[in-house]
Amino acid sequence: MEIGCKSVQDRSYRIFLEWDLLRHARSLLEANEIRGAVFVVSDKNVFRLHGKTLRAALRDHTVHVWLAQPGESSKSLNSWRRIHAFLLNNGADRKSTVIAFGGGVIGDLAGFAASTYMRGLDFLNIPTTLLSQSDSSIGAKVAVNHPAAKNLIGSFYQPRFILTDPSLLSTLPKRELAAGVGEVLKYGVIADPLLFEMLYEKVEDLMSHDRVFLEEVILRCVRTKIRVVEEDERETGLRKTLNFGHTIGHALEQATGFKMLRHGEAVAWGMLAAGWLACHRGMWETSEFSKLQSILFRAGSLHPLARATPAGVQRALKHDKKRTGKTLHFVLPVSTGKVIIVGDIPESEILGALQFIFNLASSNSRH
Amino acid sequence: MEIGCKSVQDRSYRIFLEWDLLRHARSLLEANEIRGAVFVVSDKNVFRLHGKTLRAALRDHTVHVWLAQPGESSKSLNSWRRIHAFLLNNGADRKSTVIAFGGGVIGDLAGFAASTYMRGLDFLNIPTTLLSQSDSSIGAKVAVNHPAAKNLIGSFYQPRFILTDPSLLSTLPKRELAAGVGEVLKYGVIADPLLFEMLYEKVEDLMSHDRVFLEEVILRCVRTKIRVVEEDERETGLRKTLNFGHTIGHALEQATGFKMLRHGEAVAWGMLAAGWLACHRGMWETSEFSKLQSILFRAGSLHPLARATPAGVQRALKHDKKRTGKTLHFVLPVSTGKVIIVGDIPESEILGALQFIFNLASSNSRH
Repeated sequence: MEIGCKSVQDRSYRIFLEWDLLRHARSLLEANEIRGAVFVVSDKNVFRLHGKTLRAALRDHTVHVWLAQPGESSKSLNSWRRIHAFLLNNGADRKSTVIAFGGGVIGDLAGFAASTYMRGLDFLNIPTTLLSQSDSSIGAKVAVNHPAAKNLIGSFYQPRFILTDPSLLSTLPKRELAAGVGEVLKYGVIADPLLFEMLYEKVEDLMSHDRVFLEEVILRCVRTKIRVVEEDERETGLRKTLNFGHTIGHALEQATGFKMLRHGEAVAWGMLAAGWLACHRGMWETSEFSKLQSILFRAGSLHPLARATPAGVQRALKHDKKRTGKTLHFVLPVSTGKVIIVGDIPESEILGALQFIFNLASSNSRH
Repeated sequence: MEIGCKSVQDRSYRIFLEWDLLRHARSLLEANEIRGAVFVVSDKNVFRLHGKTLRAALRDHTVHVWLAQPGESSKSLNSWRRIHAFLLNNGADRKSTVIAFGGGVIGDLAGFAASTYMRGLDFLNIPTTLLSQSDSSIGAKVAVNHPAAKNLIGSFYQPRFILTDPSLLSTLPKRELAAGVGEVLKYGVIADPLLFEMLYEKVEDLMSHDRVFLEEVILRCVRTKIRVVEEDERETGLRKTLNFGHTIGHALEQATGFKMLRHGEAVAWGMLAAGWLACHRGMWETSEFSKLQSILFRAGSLHPLARATPAGVQRALKHDKKRTGKTLHFVLPVSTGKVIIVGDIPESEILGALQFIFNLASSNSRH
């Protein structure tokens, strides 16, 4: 299946989405005129599992490989510079292509390196996690983290195309898959009530890698994401709705030093906090909020919040507010599939939401 | 005077060109909805001379200033990171504007920092040298140098607008102005025979800051540059003609560690080498080539090549070829105002061109 994503003039790109696509990627590269040397950026786990399949698909090309340590800490200026050195030392030129082969961290890192080397090399993204296949590979945002803030240094850079092969998810650790459910479910709440309902009915099928269901879920997310970023690539309006669960989620990540929680797990907790706020304000039906909890609980997306505290998260929120000079905004559902953006929520209400998730986390961990 | 430069969708920008414009810039900022805090990146010399005028123009804004050491060595990843720290520590957010206030080095550095902070802050360019006003501020190329290669790390990033005030050139050291003549004359050779003729007749007027002549020269260069980058922003074709004088010029800079020569001076020598090649091949009239020499000589653009040697420049050319895997291309005039791109010039011919400029340099320095 081939889906187009419009971007600024001559920077539109396509997403090729198909089970086992990587095995048949050779002709895709040929058809898209990827001809020069290719520079693969991947992580050690992904490449150990799928490197051979990728190499086979790239057998017509000169291939250089750079492997990062798995994890968010690789999304750094230091890795970015090392990728530039890797490109330089192996003679990358304007005809070369950078391929990201991994999850969101690898896509962001490789994309930012590609966007800034010789003012931009061709970039392909082959996402290998549920989160990156359904969400982060689309939308042209690339970045690395700065010690002071996540994604602080980055740019908008469109890939030549995205190759999405859901069969790659079969080797994904259960925790990684469960974290991806966070972002997937987000699309249900903000725009796709049917997806929400499907996940409520059978999130277990997704967790057991049911091929048909996985493909359908990813496709639905991809379609929503494309619709949003086509309308608002640079996040001046509609794209902000993609931040559902991210206000608290981001603060949770910050409060825990980006190490304890996967991004999708932080978003899962953040969605619960936002859902609580929406219900507390009488905006969203409590029965729908219960379904949200049920899905995340059954998927195992609610990783313990062991060392974090509500006060720590509040500090991170305040820090963020101070740093950006902005009011904190929350994306809140008014019905499943429809959200609005709300500013100026009193601190006491936010604390209520935080206490709700921390209570839930501690009761979860007792079970 | 206001000139538009089309770019990719919604990233077009305008150039405001007027004598004494900086003094009247307040309303320009207002009219262009520059409202948030502004972050000025400048160099110590420029800001000492014109900082007060800029501050007066920015009196409606919160202003933060970061000053670089003058010179090419400031165009580094290190400066880029320090600008990010400056932005972060002073609370820059997505509503902030970065203003480059200086020559080509400052424009490239500030533009690249702006393009990569929070995925892109608004960017204004106020060029203060002949080279940056007539050439480098236009065309959306921003970059920093890497120890291994000039402009290796960078991107394409369009400013909101460019404010070009030729009155700022009155404080420009004579050497800087003469270096700018290199790039200005380039536009004559590649596209504008009338400009070439005007410079041949009265380059001395430019060197003595004749207001009418300076304005006309800058305007003619700006118009050509816009025409070229509108057709080919990403340098896949026509934009390559802007590299007239740059093949050898670049190698000269590299062979002398980017310290001995100003960029425009290296280009001046590079144009002589390219002109020699074109005449040697019977492509260009010798009388026109003599005019080229005369203009550069009278402007004082031909800075001594003291420590460099033809062999050193040849090594730099080979290094470049090896690094990029590409054939060396020369932009050569077939008539004044019209150039073609030629590859595969034999080494012996290139050596002939180098010997020509080195002989000229040593006879210059004996006078």
